[in-house]
Amino acid sequence: MATTNTEKRARLPKEKWYKIHLFRGMINDVQRRIPFYSSDWIDAWDYRVIPATVYMFFANILPALAFSLDMFHKTGMQYGVNEVLLASVLGAVVFSLGACQPLVIVGVTGPITVFNYTVYDIMMPTGTNYLAFMCWIGIWSLIFHWILAITNSCNFLRYVTRFPCDIFGFYVAFIYLQKGIQVLEALGDGEPFYLSVVVGLLVFAIAYICGELGQSTLFKHPVRVFIKDYGTPLTVVFFTGFVHMGKMADIKLENLPTGRAFMPTVADRGWFIHFWDLRFEHVFLAIPFAVLLTVLFWFDHNVSALIAQGTEFPLKKPAGFHWDLFLLGLTTGVAGLLGLPFPNGLIPQAPFHTESLCVSEVIDSDDTDESAEGKKTDGNNNIFRATHVVEQRVSNLAQGLLTLVAMTGPLLVVLGLIPQGVLAGLFFIMGFQALQGNGTTLKLLFLMRDGRFTPANHPLKKIRRGAIWLFVTIELLGFGATFAITQTVAAVGFPIFIFLLIPVRALLLPKWIEAEALAVLDEPTASPFIMDGIGGTYGGKREEEKEEEEEGKIDDVELGQGGGGVVRRSNANAAASSAGHREDEISGV
Amino acid sequence: MATTNTEKRARLPKEKWYKIHLFRGMINDVQRRIPFYSSDWIDAWDYRVIPATVYMFFANILPALAFSLDMFHKTGMQYGVNEVLLASVLGAVVFSLGACQPLVIVGVTGPITVFNYTVYDIMMPTGTNYLAFMCWIGIWSLIFHWILAITNSCNFLRYVTRFPCDIFGFYVAFIYLQKGIQVLEALGDGEPFYLSVVVGLLVFAIAYICGELGQSTLFKHPVRVFIKDYGTPLTVVFFTGFVHMGKMADIKLENLPTGRAFMPTVADRGWFIHFWDLRFEHVFLAIPFAVLLTVLFWFDHNVSALIAQGTEFPLKKPAGFHWDLFLLGLTTGVAGLLGLPFPNGLIPQAPFHTESLCVSEVIDSDDTDESAEGKKTDGNNNIFRATHVVEQRVSNLAQGLLTLVAMTGPLLVVLGLIPQGVLAGLFFIMGFQALQGNGTTLKLLFLMRDGRFTPANHPLKKIRRGAIWLFVTIELLGFGATFAITQTVAAVGFPIFIFLLIPVRALLLPKWIEAEALAVLDEPTASPFIMDGIGGTYGGKREEEKEEEEEGKIDDVELGQGGGGVVRRSNANAAASSAGHREDEISGV
Repeated sequence: MATTNTEKRARLPKEKWYKIHLFRGMINDVQRRIPFYSSDWIDAWDYRVIPATVYMFFANILPALAFSLDMFHKTGMQYGVNEVLLASVLGAVVFSLGACQPLVIVGVTGPITVFNYTVYDIMMPTGTNYLAFMCWIGIWSLIFHWILAITNSCNFLRYVTRFPCDIFGFYVAFIYLQKGIQVLEALGDGEPFYLSVVVGLLVFAIAYICGELGQSTLFKHPVRVFIKDYGTPLTVVFFTGFVHMGKMADIKLENLPTGRAFMPTVADRGWFIHFWDLRFEHVFLAIPFAVLLTVLFWFDHNVSALIAQGTEFPLKKPAGFHWDLFLLGLTTGVAGLLGLPFPNGLIPQAPFHTESLCVSEVIDSDDTDESAEGKKTDGNNNIFRATHVVEQRVSNLAQGLLTLVAMTGPLLVVLGLIPQGVLAGLFFIMGFQALQGNGTTLKLLFLMRDGRFTPANHPLKKIRRGAIWLFVTIELLGFGATFAITQTVAAVGFPIFIFLLIPVRALLLPKWIEAEALAVLDEPTASPFIMDGIGGTYGGKREEEKEEEEEGKIDDVELGQGGGGVVRRSNANAAASSAGHREDEISGV
Repeated sequence: MATTNTEKRARLPKEKWYKIHLFRGMINDVQRRIPFYSSDWIDAWDYRVIPATVYMFFANILPALAFSLDMFHKTGMQYGVNEVLLASVLGAVVFSLGACQPLVIVGVTGPITVFNYTVYDIMMPTGTNYLAFMCWIGIWSLIFHWILAITNSCNFLRYVTRFPCDIFGFYVAFIYLQKGIQVLEALGDGEPFYLSVVVGLLVFAIAYICGELGQSTLFKHPVRVFIKDYGTPLTVVFFTGFVHMGKMADIKLENLPTGRAFMPTVADRGWFIHFWDLRFEHVFLAIPFAVLLTVLFWFDHNVSALIAQGTEFPLKKPAGFHWDLFLLGLTTGVAGLLGLPFPNGLIPQAPFHTESLCVSEVIDSDDTDESAEGKKTDGNNNIFRATHVVEQRVSNLAQGLLTLVAMTGPLLVVLGLIPQGVLAGLFFIMGFQALQGNGTTLKLLFLMRDGRFTPANHPLKKIRRGAIWLFVTIELLGFGATFAITQTVAAVGFPIFIFLLIPVRALLLPKWIEAEALAVLDEPTASPFIMDGIGGTYGGKREEEKEEEEEGKIDDVELGQGGGGVVRRSNANAAASSAGHREDEISGV
């Protein structure tokens, strides 16, 4: 490929990559994706779409309920179940219909709940109209998002390697675990508290067992997949009933607070926010918050999209980060006007969605000369390879419409039966599973492992152990600083910490850790094909190679303007570098 | 070996094996072991003895405390902590000093607690003196044990294959789980109940994690072993303190009931039971109970001894089942006279003891032509092989004396702080771990496993799947029948059910399952070397081979009379047959 790029560079006029061509990224995105738009609906005529829809509905709604409980408590009941559900619906409809990458699931995340209640804590003493203030944050954010989309800011995504993503993921996982504890803590100290702890622990344990069974070699493949996909929803259903059995029936448990069908939680407001009903200076006070929100969303949404299009998924349709950022600005503004928590790309739901649409085949046992990417071996050394992903818009739209159904009267009553202890258990399992797959965790496990039991060809074995320690220590410091600030009233500033990790990676890490080690320790988040639209990959290669490629990739973008006939190019180098991490994950199974 | 035996048979006068030579087994046992007696003390000058002693103390005392709580509740407080501890001390002292096989740890087991409280339930309505009645059961049992020892009954142990052992182990595991639930149930339904459930679940979870870490590849070997060996005791210590922290401090939890130092739990009796203080006819009514107890002990103790001397341990000193049965009669009688629950061989503590005394070495990676018995591989294909066991009497004696120290005033106070919820968690983890290693569980897992992920050379893959199903179904039926009767007032009859499994295996199974399949499904419990003293192995081989060997083995015994110069003979056949089961256990890690 390097040769091809060099050739292209020779043919094209040399141009500095940072020269801003307004709207170019968005236009490229749309031009490249439009040819696939009709196929996005036709390709949905596939069996995989149905299980993916049902699975995503549950994977989406359960955390949403947990977050809504958290925000309900901490924002003076301004945000409740209906707001969170409607935000999911809004995200699903807009992104499934209009996004360049419709695989990305959009909804309410953990970080945004932290953001929302910190704004509440800061602003309520001023006696402001909270939802109107949030609305202004949304409006300003819309403007900032659009500016960032128009100026092709996503071209900087090449610097968002696994390093900041892993730290962010680690941070989110601990936020989940902490929320689980907080939900239980809020229940006081009587019988209901201890019963809720029991229920929370059991939900966690059973969801954990379901996850382990799903990855084990027990049962036939469809049974395993069923347990893995529906184990947690069924556990929630079971324990919602369980607490009414036997001697537990007499104990009054706190349930998930719900409101009326399709209505806002706060009784006396319509869906449209009276954003003019605010002190004039607060309109501008919303700007710094909007900046923070924009930083968070630029990072969080793009990372979700990158991971959902990770190297392990053989995607064939092009991505479109610039255009999708523009759409995200739109949903942020609309959410503000409707008094909803702002939705953005969900981790881990977005990658789960792609995974649930992945089709695998058994390939020949002797076919081992290819890279290990996206493959799984069984006891007889048969190899499973992901052949393609059912790339379409229907599963995202359908799960959003199912969420809308959950806002109807009868289903809201059902949701209102879920005990808070169950939601605490849900937070625990979400946090635990996020930690399990995290790159920082995997490196920590490597360091803790008895060296004799690590395969001799493990990539991390090729580099200095000190470099791994340094890298992991920096990751943990970054996590620690972000988590610490979240515990203070300055919590709203946490996106800055996360964002600062990008220059730390680009400018400082190369000074502290030699390039060879860094290439093994860190890697691009998505495959070169996905990164094509945003200026190529970064990291995971030595400097000279990288520079060469960066220039080459820009050329690709220029070439890509012509049409959408882009097919996936294999990059053995990046694939091999990511294979190390995949291996780790598989060995952890 | 077969040739050697044939030669021997040619040289010796032919004799029917079932012809009873009173005392011959016991005399053989002693004559073979006495030459090793002084070395049993000298060999104890080994580092392994110290961790083995400390480990066995905790592995022994924690279940003992759990059982004492159970019996205390269910025998009208006649048996308490001191009785159970003293029974352990009695067993440890007698067997470490006098047994042919001092590695077998003797103490109070789950089945004997079932026996004790069932006798209590049956006899208390007659208004009898419970401890005097139990004393008579002990005295009669002493007589029956001695008769069985004198008549060389242990020669029938060759028919005790893994089949009845696995069913018995399955049964005991479920008794543990049920006891854990019963301990919690007895705590009512208030705050203390739910807090105890929380504590029980957490103790189980942490002890489980410690067990998994011990078998993982994390940390260096000594750290792993420490976590595995001391994780559970440390968890018990931690949670004994934990329940006094924060908001839990106000909750009054039920603790382990303890008495005064070295004194019986029932205040107004001395240690010696007034066995004459009983209605005359009850002396004879004790006979059927004594028969049941003898059946239970003959089976349970010998199975413990067989497993503690399993094929995976490279033992070099001879066993002595006949003599040890005689000693067991003695401890049963003495325990009866002192009003203690009757001690016998402990599963899984007895095999744990041998394992903790095992010394391994790393052998050459290419040395793979030997059988897999007792070996473990690491990531670099180095192989660990158990080279020898520190066979001595000191660790058993020392752990018994430590248990005696636990009966002193200050330590009894400490034991009295343990919340019952912690003991429930201890029952859960004991039951779970017993199930984990059980042969029936492993066969069930094999049947449930996706065939594609089972190694192609798995022994069970060589036989009819229907045969495995039939075998496992029979095992589960045997377990079900035994467990069911335990729930009724006829619980005392459960030893009969277990005992009947031996003829089922010997007479019925060969009619239902072809010999080849049976040879893979079942195997001898201990190695041919251990079985030497009791007439050789049975099962795991085809009929003609078996008969040949049986005769051969009897000759061995006769030859063995001369002296103790017996060294271990390797039997590749038996080793290979057992290797299948080992493999299963390792793959389950």
